[in-house]
Amino acid sequence: MDKGRMEAFSDGVIAIIITIMVLGITAPEGDRLADLLGLLPAIAAYAVSFIGVGTYWNNHHHLLKLVNRVSGRMLWSNLAFLFVLSFFPLATDWMQKTGFAALPTTCYVVVNMLVSLTYMNLERVIRRDLSQSCPPNPANEREAERRAMVEKRSLLKERLTLGLEVVGLVIALVLPSSHLALVALVIAFLLWIVPDLRIVRLLDFLAEEEG
Amino acid sequence: MDKGRMEAFSDGVIAIIITIMVLGITAPEGDRLADLLGLLPAIAAYAVSFIGVGTYWNNHHHLLKLVNRVSGRMLWSNLAFLFVLSFFPLATDWMQKTGFAALPTTCYVVVNMLVSLTYMNLERVIRRDLSQSCPPNPANEREAERRAMVEKRSLLKERLTLGLEVVGLVIALVLPSSHLALVALVIAFLLWIVPDLRIVRLLDFLAEEEG
Amino acid sequence: MDKGRMEAFSDGVIAIIITIMVLGITAPEGDRLADLLGLLPAIAAYAVSFIGVGTYWNNHHHLLKLVNRVSGRMLWSNLAFLFVLSFFPLATDWMQKTGFAALPTTCYVVVNMLVSLTYMNLERVIRRDLSQSCPPNPANEREAERRAMVEKRSLLKERLTLGLEVVGLVIALVLPSSHLALVALVIAFLLWIVPDLRIVRLLDFLAEEEG
Amino acid sequence: MDKGRMEAFSDGVIAIIITIMVLGITAPEGDRLADLLGLLPAIAAYAVSFIGVGTYWNNHHHLLKLVNRVSGRMLWSNLAFLFVLSFFPLATDWMQKTGFAALPTTCYVVVNMLVSLTYMNLERVIRRDLSQSCPPNPANEREAERRAMVEKRSLLKERLTLGLEVVGLVIALVLPSSHLALVALVIAFLLWIVPDLRIVRLLDFLAEEEG
Repeated sequence: MDKGRMEAFSDGVIAIIITIMVLGITAPEGDRLADLLGLLPAIAAYAVSFIGVGTYWNNHHHLLKLVNRVSGRMLWSNLAFLFVLSFFPLATDWMQKTGFAALPTTCYVVVNMLVSLTYMNLERVIRRDLSQSCPPNPANEREAERRAMVEKRSLLKERLTLGLEVVGLVIALVLPSSHLALVALVIAFLLWIVPDLRIVRLLDFLAEEEG
Repeated sequence: MDKGRMEAFSDGVIAIIITIMVLGITAPEGDRLADLLGLLPAIAAYAVSFIGVGTYWNNHHHLLKLVNRVSGRMLWSNLAFLFVLSFFPLATDWMQKTGFAALPTTCYVVVNMLVSLTYMNLERVIRRDLSQSCPPNPANEREAERRAMVEKRSLLKERLTLGLEVVGLVIALVLPSSHLALVALVIAFLLWIVPDLRIVRLLDFLAEEEG
Repeated sequence: MDKGRMEAFSDGVIAIIITIMVLGITAPEGDRLADLLGLLPAIAAYAVSFIGVGTYWNNHHHLLKLVNRVSGRMLWSNLAFLFVLSFFPLATDWMQKTGFAALPTTCYVVVNMLVSLTYMNLERVIRRDLSQSCPPNPANEREAERRAMVEKRSLLKERLTLGLEVVGLVIALVLPSSHLALVALVIAFLLWIVPDLRIVRLLDFLAEEEG
Repeated sequence: MDKGRMEAFSDGVIAIIITIMVLGITAPEGDRLADLLGLLPAIAAYAVSFIGVGTYWNNHHHLLKLVNRVSGRMLWSNLAFLFVLSFFPLATDWMQKTGFAALPTTCYVVVNMLVSLTYMNLERVIRRDLSQSCPPNPANEREAERRAMVEKRSLLKERLTLGLEVVGLVIALVLPSSHLALVALVIAFLLWIVPDLRIVRLLDFLAEEEG
């Protein structure tokens, strides 16, 4: 199985998911300012989801760079990730149509968590395959150190993400204004949006402290 | 006609089919647990269809690896396969909206059968073309044996698939709870999902017994 | 401008057009045989449109093989073709929902004609560019003959197509059962579906008779 | 990050945006001439949007030719452009369904402006990266002149575009027949549709006058 076609298929599915979300915003009947303002929650929800799916697309792309040969396990891990990602439009729609009510917002956060978990699973599968196909050179200490470093950092980032999602979950379930849960999600996206700037350095620092 | 563009077009169509299926699940009006639970049959039907289309995409990809040059016959066999595959969203939708009633579930199984049949037809066309363009070396007995083996195994798998689909058809038509027909379909998908693990060995064993 | 991206964009648009047509068929509310039979006209209309768009995709692909460099004129001729092609889902939908009434069927035939005309225009633009970038060698008489032959044949095919579309137009406007117009369109598609088999030989024969 | 996949993803998203706009035109219930004529505003609005998105696709494609390596900033500038571009279907829909009323038409013009601004931002990011990665040779005066010329021309074109969009905005807000605002937009598109013919020469002339 060649990697190019798995990339192309994933890109196609993600491009469609990110674009059909806008179909969930229906044009209002009236033509007054109130009608336009009525669209704002839908647009806000769409914007958050767009950033989310865009971030996953970007990271997914980087991840697939590590792949040499596609195994059956990898293929199905990828499909599992795409499957839960495809619930973004529905979850966004429900949350926005019910005015960010508690249960729909909780479901939105849960979809985010499932996407994170399937993504992390995919990462694990790809990493394991990589360390089997090109094992670290035991003689090269520096390389081994770097690998360990990257893995530690990546693990920290994943824990932070899951932590933020749990915070989002609690907000959505407990607070009366559950739409604040989206703030936690957006912070989680930011961890992955600017991986090579401030956050990376922060994570490096934290990882050094921890290690 | 070059193979790359046929692959790209097929990938595009399959990516769209697999993604627009989720549009069939409409966000409920209410925001209560009952509304969420009301989505479960739709999500279950979507999951089965996602696995189905994903499996076909995976196998289709492997199949196209055998292609050297695309003939007109191959192109139209491929379009026939995509045509019937495009009924997945409609059939899934109808089945799920009518609560897995007998007739819609039967139609869903029939769509599955038509997809299998057009896929098998495409496989036959590609195989015939392959054996013409690179005929087996008569001097190499081992190669001839291997080819015959692969064909026998593939034939057995196809028969098992059609058999399971017939079982699904009977369940959908006869049993009061027609949604059990999906179990037969999922087993049929499993035959193709893990082709290189247990099932292949089982099929090898059966083929040896049979041969 | 490189050809690969124009191909990829066209493939994307055509793949989406061919797939969203199926969204025009809505799952019925009921679960009886009458509901299924009620879908048949929609499915028939979809099948005709699928064959039509599939045929155009196939021929478009062959046409783009002649392209060396993409000019601005070519790019916009291609977009004009894609624009009218994108009316297929709407025209199919209207025709099928009104039970193949006279006006909607006429519009469907008109969309077919516009697609043919923009396709022929694209072909002309590409051919003109080709004869400028690699003019026929005047010393090679055989090559010149062949080029003239292909052009004559192609012209004949185009005239036949437009003739069949005019017949379809008349049927849709005049006859009480306007859905028979689709027969003329399907015959026109057949001219392009099997270009290298019987029809080509017939066209060769006719062109020889004519020449 | 390699450029090919950013191109492919952008092409996918733009192809979907341009194609799902046609889903906004719903087939009428009746089958009379009045029903067809009732579609004309929707078709006109779709045509304008198709030309607009098509023009952006074409120019986006040219722009990406300048890219050597994709930076994080570039990637997110590109996603911002795609995000606002994805509002084209919704804005077109609302404008056409309300009969080109003042507010919806204004919003449509605003979406056009936002698309222009994010496109110009993307252009700036790409240009800055280019001048860093391959700085102009100070010894080659001619090259430096040409670069300055292209930038001046491009700046002029952008100012004209924004000017025309402001004119459109004023028309939509002030004049009773706000659909005339589309005329200003179409003129703005024309600046970018035929970049290498008359307009370019005019811009050259103006730039010479100005310089």
